[in-house]
Amino acid sequence: MAHQTQLVVDMPGRGTRDITAEVAQAVARAGVRTGLAHVFVQHTSCALVVTENADPDVRRDLETLLARAAPDGDPAWRHDTEGPDDMAAHARSVLTGCFLTLPVGGGRLQLGTWQGLFLWEHRTGPQRRHVVVTVLGD
Amino acid sequence: MAHQTQLVVDMPGRGTRDITAEVAQAVARAGVRTGLAHVFVQHTSCALVVTENADPDVRRDLETLLARAAPDGDPAWRHDTEGPDDMAAHARSVLTGCFLTLPVGGGRLQLGTWQGLFLWEHRTGPQRRHVVVTVLGD
Amino acid sequence: MAHQTQLVVDMPGRGTRDITAEVAQAVARAGVRTGLAHVFVQHTSCALVVTENADPDVRRDLETLLARAAPDGDPAWRHDTEGPDDMAAHARSVLTGCFLTLPVGGGRLQLGTWQGLFLWEHRTGPQRRHVVVTVLGD
Repeated sequence: MAHQTQLVVDMPGRGTRDITAEVAQAVARAGVRTGLAHVFVQHTSCALVVTENADPDVRRDLETLLARAAPDGDPAWRHDTEGPDDMAAHARSVLTGCFLTLPVGGGRLQLGTWQGLFLWEHRTGPQRRHVVVTVLGD
Repeated sequence: MAHQTQLVVDMPGRGTRDITAEVAQAVARAGVRTGLAHVFVQHTSCALVVTENADPDVRRDLETLLARAAPDGDPAWRHDTEGPDDMAAHARSVLTGCFLTLPVGGGRLQLGTWQGLFLWEHRTGPQRRHVVVTVLGD
Repeated sequence: MAHQTQLVVDMPGRGTRDITAEVAQAVARAGVRTGLAHVFVQHTSCALVVTENADPDVRRDLETLLARAAPDGDPAWRHDTEGPDDMAAHARSVLTGCFLTLPVGGGRLQLGTWQGLFLWEHRTGPQRRHVVVTVLGD
């Protein structure tokens, strides 16, 4: 069985949004008992990550991590058509990834207690993001 | 066909452990000839990676890489409830990832000669880690 | 349904090559309408990434990003048997990943307008790279 749905997520700017509930709902609707759920964002300047879902400081610290690795307005960036965060966002996106694949068992996402699924916007301005959720299995 | 099994891996602390044989065994038991094997760790402070399986210096150098990118006890980290390696471990986990998806062909993992599958513990103390292996295909 | 094919890609040295068309062709041949396409490189010193497909400066800037994170000939590297780019390439490979999983819908890859699939060679000399494409679904 293969089921596919689309999510549209409006992001106010750089930062994370927990999309675990939306993905869990797509899995429930798919009717797959055992298999995989795949989440894919159709853009090159944001990302999908699994991280700690309890303390928002974790996600603030992750911003610090990426601000060091790929700073906005770095004089070395050649690609800056859309502003100082343009290339930084592509770089952050490559370091963090545009898809997640997750186990489905007993008809549900098999996440650990502290794992949340986050859409991570890397551009500083507002963006509408398109996400494809695919569920495969028996 | 969809098959799912669980592995429990006890890690003595920060470092890597080769789990290629355990994953290969789960693939053999699944009876899938052509498809995908997915390995997922249900935690946010360790990771799963594919890297060189011959020279242990590669994995020592990978520790150097991450110690620079996400140092223990960095004064910038706000999240430090569980000690100086707490946020560093979450940061390392986001950079290295909590899942792998691998091709299965002829009933076996289709890895290159030098590719090993490693559970990479990012916390400094001992941890029990739960891994879900899912095999899908014909 | 599960279909698997192999690609052989000759890379002249460090840099990216767009393999979107080859992967799209494998998906078309598989005859899967809804499902997943998985692309895997059987090596530990190159990578597969999704990034912006329009401006080659983006990929030049991504080289800058990795040259800072994992420099060739870093005195801290212990693994240097094959030269100053040996460990740097393994480190870059772990940061960027050896596989991609992509949604298939309506019999085609469901990529965003600006998303390209790139084989990213991290060694400085010429390399022959083996890629396995697996397509699963209905």
